[in-house]
Amino acid sequence: MRLNPRSGLKDMSKLRAQISVSADGYVAGPDQSEENPLGVGGEHLHDWMIELRAWRETHGREGGEVNASTPVAEAYLASTGAEIMGRGKFGGGPGPWGDDPWTGWWGDDPPFHMPVFVLTHHAREPLTLSDTTFNFVTDGIESALEQAREAAAGKDVLVGGGANAINQYLAGGLLDELQLSVVPVVLGRGARLFEGVGPEIELEQVSAIEAPGVSHVKYRVARG
Amino acid sequence: MRLNPRSGLKDMSKLRAQISVSADGYVAGPDQSEENPLGVGGEHLHDWMIELRAWRETHGREGGEVNASTPVAEAYLASTGAEIMGRGKFGGGPGPWGDDPWTGWWGDDPPFHMPVFVLTHHAREPLTLSDTTFNFVTDGIESALEQAREAAAGKDVLVGGGANAINQYLAGGLLDELQLSVVPVVLGRGARLFEGVGPEIELEQVSAIEAPGVSHVKYRVARG
Repeated sequence: MRLNPRSGLKDMSKLRAQISVSADGYVAGPDQSEENPLGVGGEHLHDWMIELRAWRETHGREGGEVNASTPVAEAYLASTGAEIMGRGKFGGGPGPWGDDPWTGWWGDDPPFHMPVFVLTHHAREPLTLSDTTFNFVTDGIESALEQAREAAAGKDVLVGGGANAINQYLAGGLLDELQLSVVPVVLGRGARLFEGVGPEIELEQVSAIEAPGVSHVKYRVARG
Repeated sequence: MRLNPRSGLKDMSKLRAQISVSADGYVAGPDQSEENPLGVGGEHLHDWMIELRAWRETHGREGGEVNASTPVAEAYLASTGAEIMGRGKFGGGPGPWGDDPWTGWWGDDPPFHMPVFVLTHHAREPLTLSDTTFNFVTDGIESALEQAREAAAGKDVLVGGGANAINQYLAGGLLDELQLSVVPVVLGRGARLFEGVGPEIELEQVSAIEAPGVSHVKYRVARG
């Protein structure tokens, strides 16, 4: 939790990261591409989530399960006011955006329903699709955080991935909470969480929840 | 579980690995030495265990706690008939044993109370200290497993570490069960679990237990 003398509301706003990770610590497999956005083998990292009714409702799909993962998904949906993501998660490959720029993986009605801030080296006008606006931030993670906090209006800000974005906020000591959904998969290679993060980052275990095909471990994060 | 037509008892004997691991996947920190057997920062990986009455009783110490970690420690103590460990866990540095060979970290009464098989490239006569005999195996992990199974007399065989020994048994498809005790610590560098292990190793989540300062996740392991 950051203290902000200018706003009582923002005092309550946390910066959280929530991500599915393989047992060997990868949030995506190797060789990410348009066909394989989560890399080879990475598509199974989100199986536990896609089966949930709570997730399906926000993605316009019917059916789904209610199980021990449901409160984890619902807590995310209820408390998040803005999301920060890396250029890799938004997709479209590296480099300049070009004349016919990529508009994300999610079609005309993205499942975020909140302001999204995309970390990139390449400037671009905001993109609004249905009730999601993607803002492209070129001046670094602290600027993105400041803009996202403002947009979240007192709710939490989520760093939704990928590994590189989360690792930067972790290493910078900016993250307040890290929720890992550990999936029983070995990827062997890929985008590794905690890469470049050192022992100066202190964790406190908040909870560990057993759910079908996944275990959810939540940490409070501090910089020692 | 391995099927062995020669022995009904051995049919029940599993090869298990049980180890404490940091949130970023290391079972020891960097710069392991005689003073820092678990490397810099690694000494906190076992705090949860050393606080337990179940552990203290087997190490000749008084007091200790009973908590959600107790069944994890007791299951290990009850079901293990022999332990395999790497040369690093036994200690004494790499290379030939010399004229005044290292006898382990544990003094005259090691806490194993069972046959131990040490993987090494350097032959050495067995070493008996109290009711623990250390056997030194130079002809590879499969030979060590065969000898340990024989010695375990129907009970499970434990691969007690370090990372390298567990990774070899994992990658070789020989492990039946992997119990990770995930500690809220970031080490940043060190001996990494799953190094050299690929997606051909399949995991099935058996259980996840929240305990004070640690979460215990157990996987069944198969080779796909």
